[in-house]
Amino acid sequence: MRHSALDDVYCSVARSWAVVGERWTMLVLREAFLRTRRFEDFQRRLGIARNVLAERLARLVEEGVLERRLYQDRPPRHEYRLTQKGLDLYPALVALMQWGDRYACTAPPVTLVHEPCGAPADPRFVCSACGEEIDPRDMRPEVAEGAFELPAR
Amino acid sequence: MRHSALDDVYCSVARSWAVVGERWTMLVLREAFLRTRRFEDFQRRLGIARNVLAERLARLVEEGVLERRLYQDRPPRHEYRLTQKGLDLYPALVALMQWGDRYACTAPPVTLVHEPCGAPADPRFVCSACGEEIDPRDMRPEVAEGAFELPAR
Repeated sequence: MRHSALDDVYCSVARSWAVVGERWTMLVLREAFLRTRRFEDFQRRLGIARNVLAERLARLVEEGVLERRLYQDRPPRHEYRLTQKGLDLYPALVALMQWGDRYACTAPPVTLVHEPCGAPADPRFVCSACGEEIDPRDMRPEVAEGAFELPAR
Repeated sequence: MRHSALDDVYCSVARSWAVVGERWTMLVLREAFLRTRRFEDFQRRLGIARNVLAERLARLVEEGVLERRLYQDRPPRHEYRLTQKGLDLYPALVALMQWGDRYACTAPPVTLVHEPCGAPADPRFVCSACGEEIDPRDMRPEVAEGAFELPAR
């Protein structure tokens, strides 16, 4: 099954994965959240092959995660900015970062400061109804009919 | 750069990605959180090639995300269960699911019920200091020295 076939599975994780699950994509998004906008800067900061970077950026633009904008006319130059759809990937990115902080780095490479309160924020996942922190053992999945079905071949 | 070289970048996202960023891995984890434990059940539910599934499970065991336990002696049969390190991937998985719910599915395939309060929980990401919901535009990253540096080649 090719990666793109994930699009067809009735599963929100599979469909997200079809957009962001390619090699390098999450690091391109990390850079976008760090306000990297230009091809040359993505390339230099990630040390990634130009053709791979071009392909990843094009895919994120096609999916509406990034917007490609002209910022200079002569010669024409474009920059890449997160759309609202792209900004909404922030929790996924931060959750991966926190897991890496805990299990894969001796000291966190990035500390996130929550500007409205001024404190270093270690974002927490809480229940929208009661506000308590989420423990996966407390969550019961109710699975809709047809969920996870594979596309017919 | 091979995927595994991500291990060496001083970046928590890159290091998480080196563990979970392979094709299919996040869906194997989805199944583990749905309490799928046996090879045959993973295989049937995901419709994934056996060799790919075996490789993904072995990698997750090697990384300490899953634990392989004998559940039957004759013939020997093993099952795969999430460790605490694996359970701690739940926020990342749910964040990807929520994004897919919003942008890629007409109706959510899975609803999560928070058993302690009994309500369908739409988990939210909040600041650990002030409790307000996180808006990515409010977060200022403080980047440690050496962060994101690529390994010497």
